[in-house]
Amino acid sequence: MTERTQITRLREYGSTDRAALDRLLADVRVGHFGLADDAGRPVVIPTAVAPDGDRVLAHGSTGSRWMRQLAAGAETCLAVTALDGLAVARTAFESSLHYRSAVLFGRCTALAGEDKAAALDVITEALLPGRTAEIRPANRRELQATLVLALPITEWSLKAFDGWTEDGDDDLAGPAWAGVVPMVTGYGSPRPAPDLRTGIEVPPSVTRLVRRDPGQAR
Amino acid sequence: MTERTQITRLREYGSTDRAALDRLLADVRVGHFGLADDAGRPVVIPTAVAPDGDRVLAHGSTGSRWMRQLAAGAETCLAVTALDGLAVARTAFESSLHYRSAVLFGRCTALAGEDKAAALDVITEALLPGRTAEIRPANRRELQATLVLALPITEWSLKAFDGWTEDGDDDLAGPAWAGVVPMVTGYGSPRPAPDLRTGIEVPPSVTRLVRRDPGQAR
Repeated sequence: MTERTQITRLREYGSTDRAALDRLLADVRVGHFGLADDAGRPVVIPTAVAPDGDRVLAHGSTGSRWMRQLAAGAETCLAVTALDGLAVARTAFESSLHYRSAVLFGRCTALAGEDKAAALDVITEALLPGRTAEIRPANRRELQATLVLALPITEWSLKAFDGWTEDGDDDLAGPAWAGVVPMVTGYGSPRPAPDLRTGIEVPPSVTRLVRRDPGQAR
Repeated sequence: MTERTQITRLREYGSTDRAALDRLLADVRVGHFGLADDAGRPVVIPTAVAPDGDRVLAHGSTGSRWMRQLAAGAETCLAVTALDGLAVARTAFESSLHYRSAVLFGRCTALAGEDKAAALDVITEALLPGRTAEIRPANRRELQATLVLALPITEWSLKAFDGWTEDGDDDLAGPAWAGVVPMVTGYGSPRPAPDLRTGIEVPPSVTRLVRRDPGQAR
């Protein structure tokens, strides 16, 4: 724990549980990288992220200046956030969200060679499990056009709330409802591309994804 | 448009359509504010956001140092991102996400008085439409403990992809599937708080929210 991972607000919701961080990273699809621009002003970049052991992977085009800045080892902060529900109190003040939120600090490294190709497969599998077995491997041109970044999971903090709201005695005795409304996210029916050749069925990766219980996609 | 709202990558997906920005802001629940810490290092803070005309509202505790830094007018970048589906190509390289993503640059102001109280109602209504009519107004203690921030919608950019992926001729002729898998988010059955007094029914605000078509909550 460092000065910047120390939670100062609502400390009781803070967690140093690495397994909980791993679950959050597995549940989210997108993270937000913070950067400073040339003038030192903050910039936030959303991008797909995927956990890979003790690092978080992201990828993007070599044509993206922000990806290049991250690849060059710029200091960054990655925020990953999952929204799990509305925590409805008897008052607006005590109402809240059910959420899980982590920030990771550090510098990315750009991957190369075998590690880069394997990391791209990890990203593909995170978004659509089983997909890599259904498609050809990336070719040299594609690998060259892609930056693959790894942020080490070293300096991080995690905050989560999944409890019940707490109203004061006056409000407890009042007429207002309180409870939780879960948010559920899942996948709808796949739509084939207009240029799909006839006879090509929806692949197992997509079928499995759509059949999964709701609440798994974010 | 400024230097930093100019889209350099995949320009064809950029948009200056203010109505599209407003739809995105109405669809998201959470945004990510970028800040620089005392040492100039990037920090990203997730928080609930709500559109309010030509500004975006956020709120938090006076006990949060990041909220105080935003309230003090620190330069910031707010990213709001909606994930609408998986765009599955015949190759990993051409695969993508259906997304809508905006960044807004500027400085927040801290609201006070009537404007502050009204803005809190806007935030409550954005999360749970109709709720303000079901609960008492915020009291003085609650208002004093809350920072309400407004970021003007002046310098922003928007990028979205909702199309079909484009594979090369060799891959088009191959055996792999391509299409889109929509992501759908909605609300599950409300769970009453354990300390809810008997006889208090689920209120209209929650009933309406849960009955809404999926794809509305993010």
